[in-house]
Amino acid sequence: MPSYRAPVDDVKFLLNDVFYIDRYANLPGFSDATPDVVDAILGEAAKLCEQVLTPLNRAGDKEGCKRATDGSVTTPPGFKEAFKQIVEGGWIGISAPVEFGGQGLPMVMTQIVNEFLCSANMAFAMYPGLTQGAIAALIAHGSVEQKAAYLPKMIEGAWTGTMNLTEPHCGTDLGLLRTKSVKQSDGSYKITGTKIFISAGEHDLAPNIIHLVLARIEGAPEGTRGISLFVCPKILPKPDGSLGARNAVTCGSLEEKMGIHGNSTCVMNYDGATGWLLGEENRGLHAMFTMMNEARLGVGVQGLAQSEVAYQNAVTYAKERLQGRALTGVKYKDKPADPIIVHPDVRRTLMTIKSFNEAARALVVWTALTADLHHRSEDEKTRQAADDHMGLLTPVIKGVLTDTGFANTVMAQQMYGGHGYIAEHGMEQFVRDARIAMIYEGANGIQALDLVGRKLPKDGGRALQAFFAEVQGFIKEHSADAAMKPFVEPVGKALGHLQQATMWFMANAMAKPDNAGAGSTDYLHMFGLCALGYMWARMAAAAQAKLKTDANGAGARMSAKLVTGRFFMERVLPETAAQLARITAGAGSTMELPDEMF
Amino acid sequence: MPSYRAPVDDVKFLLNDVFYIDRYANLPGFSDATPDVVDAILGEAAKLCEQVLTPLNRAGDKEGCKRATDGSVTTPPGFKEAFKQIVEGGWIGISAPVEFGGQGLPMVMTQIVNEFLCSANMAFAMYPGLTQGAIAALIAHGSVEQKAAYLPKMIEGAWTGTMNLTEPHCGTDLGLLRTKSVKQSDGSYKITGTKIFISAGEHDLAPNIIHLVLARIEGAPEGTRGISLFVCPKILPKPDGSLGARNAVTCGSLEEKMGIHGNSTCVMNYDGATGWLLGEENRGLHAMFTMMNEARLGVGVQGLAQSEVAYQNAVTYAKERLQGRALTGVKYKDKPADPIIVHPDVRRTLMTIKSFNEAARALVVWTALTADLHHRSEDEKTRQAADDHMGLLTPVIKGVLTDTGFANTVMAQQMYGGHGYIAEHGMEQFVRDARIAMIYEGANGIQALDLVGRKLPKDGGRALQAFFAEVQGFIKEHSADAAMKPFVEPVGKALGHLQQATMWFMANAMAKPDNAGAGSTDYLHMFGLCALGYMWARMAAAAQAKLKTDANGAGARMSAKLVTGRFFMERVLPETAAQLARITAGAGSTMELPDEMF
Repeated sequence: MPSYRAPVDDVKFLLNDVFYIDRYANLPGFSDATPDVVDAILGEAAKLCEQVLTPLNRAGDKEGCKRATDGSVTTPPGFKEAFKQIVEGGWIGISAPVEFGGQGLPMVMTQIVNEFLCSANMAFAMYPGLTQGAIAALIAHGSVEQKAAYLPKMIEGAWTGTMNLTEPHCGTDLGLLRTKSVKQSDGSYKITGTKIFISAGEHDLAPNIIHLVLARIEGAPEGTRGISLFVCPKILPKPDGSLGARNAVTCGSLEEKMGIHGNSTCVMNYDGATGWLLGEENRGLHAMFTMMNEARLGVGVQGLAQSEVAYQNAVTYAKERLQGRALTGVKYKDKPADPIIVHPDVRRTLMTIKSFNEAARALVVWTALTADLHHRSEDEKTRQAADDHMGLLTPVIKGVLTDTGFANTVMAQQMYGGHGYIAEHGMEQFVRDARIAMIYEGANGIQALDLVGRKLPKDGGRALQAFFAEVQGFIKEHSADAAMKPFVEPVGKALGHLQQATMWFMANAMAKPDNAGAGSTDYLHMFGLCALGYMWARMAAAAQAKLKTDANGAGARMSAKLVTGRFFMERVLPETAAQLARITAGAGSTMELPDEMF
Repeated sequence: MPSYRAPVDDVKFLLNDVFYIDRYANLPGFSDATPDVVDAILGEAAKLCEQVLTPLNRAGDKEGCKRATDGSVTTPPGFKEAFKQIVEGGWIGISAPVEFGGQGLPMVMTQIVNEFLCSANMAFAMYPGLTQGAIAALIAHGSVEQKAAYLPKMIEGAWTGTMNLTEPHCGTDLGLLRTKSVKQSDGSYKITGTKIFISAGEHDLAPNIIHLVLARIEGAPEGTRGISLFVCPKILPKPDGSLGARNAVTCGSLEEKMGIHGNSTCVMNYDGATGWLLGEENRGLHAMFTMMNEARLGVGVQGLAQSEVAYQNAVTYAKERLQGRALTGVKYKDKPADPIIVHPDVRRTLMTIKSFNEAARALVVWTALTADLHHRSEDEKTRQAADDHMGLLTPVIKGVLTDTGFANTVMAQQMYGGHGYIAEHGMEQFVRDARIAMIYEGANGIQALDLVGRKLPKDGGRALQAFFAEVQGFIKEHSADAAMKPFVEPVGKALGHLQQATMWFMANAMAKPDNAGAGSTDYLHMFGLCALGYMWARMAAAAQAKLKTDANGAGARMSAKLVTGRFFMERVLPETAAQLARITAGAGSTMELPDEMF
């Protein structure tokens, strides 16, 4: 049975010592996030995740969700009781507006807690997670009445939410969408069509489910400009908020899938279901995209979360499993063999994952804080810079944290040898669960295209220039500090590669866009490495500062930070050289083969 | 439902045009492998795999094996009938000695057919595959009587075989092995202990199963020098060869595992089971290792096989799935969207897999031919050179073909978006099945250590020097040929990196062996890239020669070879630069962290 321990100390190091959360105290909500409140939230979240959700993870995978012939869906044993604790703890709404019953705390707190939840039980965490996504859409686009009708219930967790985008013939290309919507005389719409891959589409955790559905209003233009967003509850609320009639939206079947068995992935049938327009007519895609950044950031967090829990269990096993002797001689004479953590290849694997996880967490915290700035700052310029940052970093975080997070679960599983392949230790479940995060909320190839094709050139490259300037500024600031040399030099080199790749795109992709497409995934990952490297440089600076004072006896932890950061520089970051070579090879041999020769 | 088409043309290109199988005609068995015979074997194997085994793969995964309370195991529907066809076709023994009923054909034919079998149905292919392994051990170490008693039945497929090494507390470190064996007055032994992860340990495909078991004879030394190998049949054969009494070896349970559900992975209980010594006392590990090269080559083939079938299905999907439009403008005006194969990132993915598969297949054919030389040549020097080659390339093929093969199944699955995550298309099964090949027959970290710690320094580096000399000789031979420049130049550069890494180990790992351990996996993969690059260079030379004559209208296929080879050089091989940087960073930051800080 796998175990989990929430990385509370690491989070506090990031909030306090790396990103100075106290500097944000002038923003709404941040003044409430006092060190005591943050401590209490992290402690309570850790307890819930470690003691309640982790033990449900394996059984949730094994039992899965069950659909009865009437279309109702039962979640795995224990999920209902656990969800009650989510509701009672107010966990869905910790960053939601106070006026609708939320706690109004910074968004960064939600992303941090979501990492813990996803590490403990990713399939379970998706139920509150999707509800948060639907809440964000309702806040951004709902009418006053819609907000009043849905937000308090959803923020409380009394009702949950979903997103209905995908159809059998269209996922990425939503312009092909066929679900229809016909306006009724009372202003409502009748929605008809089939949606697939709908996470948490039907379940027994809450009495009502609020579906947000993309559909095409009768007579609307073809393509992406004719798509509208609708709110469509499973059970129609009466004017007083109590539950009324059952709506004509049902779960047609559950998908049989590789992992996240504890989450109900539904085919949803809309048979003239009643819905109401959310936002403007034919602006449905636009409405979805305004909340896409947070949703994608959340999926990136899932990749990190699985990487973290897989790492923790691999470490435990590596310390317990006795096999072979250290290359440098017997380490534990009293034991029949040494624990495998003595072996350099095992340590290399663990350090590779560890050095990613800690930097990825920093990247998430940094970007979530930026999201808070974007939503809460009163300064126009700050808001714009924050929006630029979010737009640029979102595809990077989604793509890199899920690709690498998945690869890390595979590496962690490998530490167990044959024992990693059998279900008992739970390692293979982490692999299967982590795999989906590379696919949903925009497959990672789409993230790469979004970065290269849209985010780089946007506003004349303003966001990218700001990112370059920030990293270069940091490097310059620390260039005279010998202790920082092992960090800022490699980051400078990697950033140089990223700039060369960017220049190469500018010179070669305008006339031949395939040159950008063929290099997009490498560019995405190169960007990710630079961003993670920058995070390590900042963490190293913070650790060195803390080591000088060492007020809280954090010496050993801070020294470990510096070693881990150096490992990242020496063993992970050099990849950018190979990425640059691949990108600048261009699209020639990639595009040359006739289709029939594949 | 996934489909499969055996790459018969590609195999013929390798045998005839790249490796000139006709030059081996002086060896025993090769003269029988005339072009007609090879054609017939490939054609029949393809038919069996495409039409019989492929359709059983999905159901085999879903149904899995079932154990009854009496310990008997039922294989998935259709497996029994399919195995009959294996027996009737004589597929287990195509390379086995004629004197025991085999066809005596070169080992390369078995490896080729095994690729087809594993692509079609890996879980199924393991039943005949493990039997071949047990046959090899019996040929190498069996007494005249043992050979007579077991080989004809096993080569026919009337009985199957297994390997019993792993115990709950020991896998890699077999010195810890506890299974006991006590000599009886009649010369037999009573074997007692528990073995785990025993593939094909119990099933209903054949009436008898011949277990080869590692155990420690009462009073034998501790550690690896006290381990002996035993042959221990499920049912004791009578002197006339008919089945006698049931032996005290039973399947205690089936492992619940990530994939290969169609293969029965058993916990085997030996309760004083009767067995006979195979080979010499206390030389059991040695006996196992003599057949390890072929077994590991076979596992490498599994990695290639899953990569190939996953690739084929990804190509089909990429040509059918309509989503979005080409970056360079609409390609199919009559369709609502272009097939996704127009997108550069999709093509990059497919080309990455394709360029690996074709080179990996070449590497397998090359090395299997070397195995034939080793076993069949009458020239001592040739045999020694072949043995050197096998020893050096075996860990590379096992480690790289399974690591990259697995990664490729993940990439192929990604092409399907959400449809790859659900079971229907079979893509997620390829991922789950391929995963085991990185673990068994020596986890890949062990392959890396074997390469760096044992194979490199062996005989003063003779094998490695021969490999370098061969590749450099080829480069030199083609250095004046402008058409070969895009191939030999990158290979030369990669080989230079490999040589630098080797030199670095020589200078830095003698005093500090951790420097070798920490770089071993990168070195393994770097070696793999060089070997695959060399295969591409040879294939390119063969393709160019064939293009000049184009006797069989192979022009389009040969041009495709050249494009695919160039892609490998431009987009895959540059990785060696990053690997070199990681290796030469040394073990410092890898080993520095105190255990408690992980």
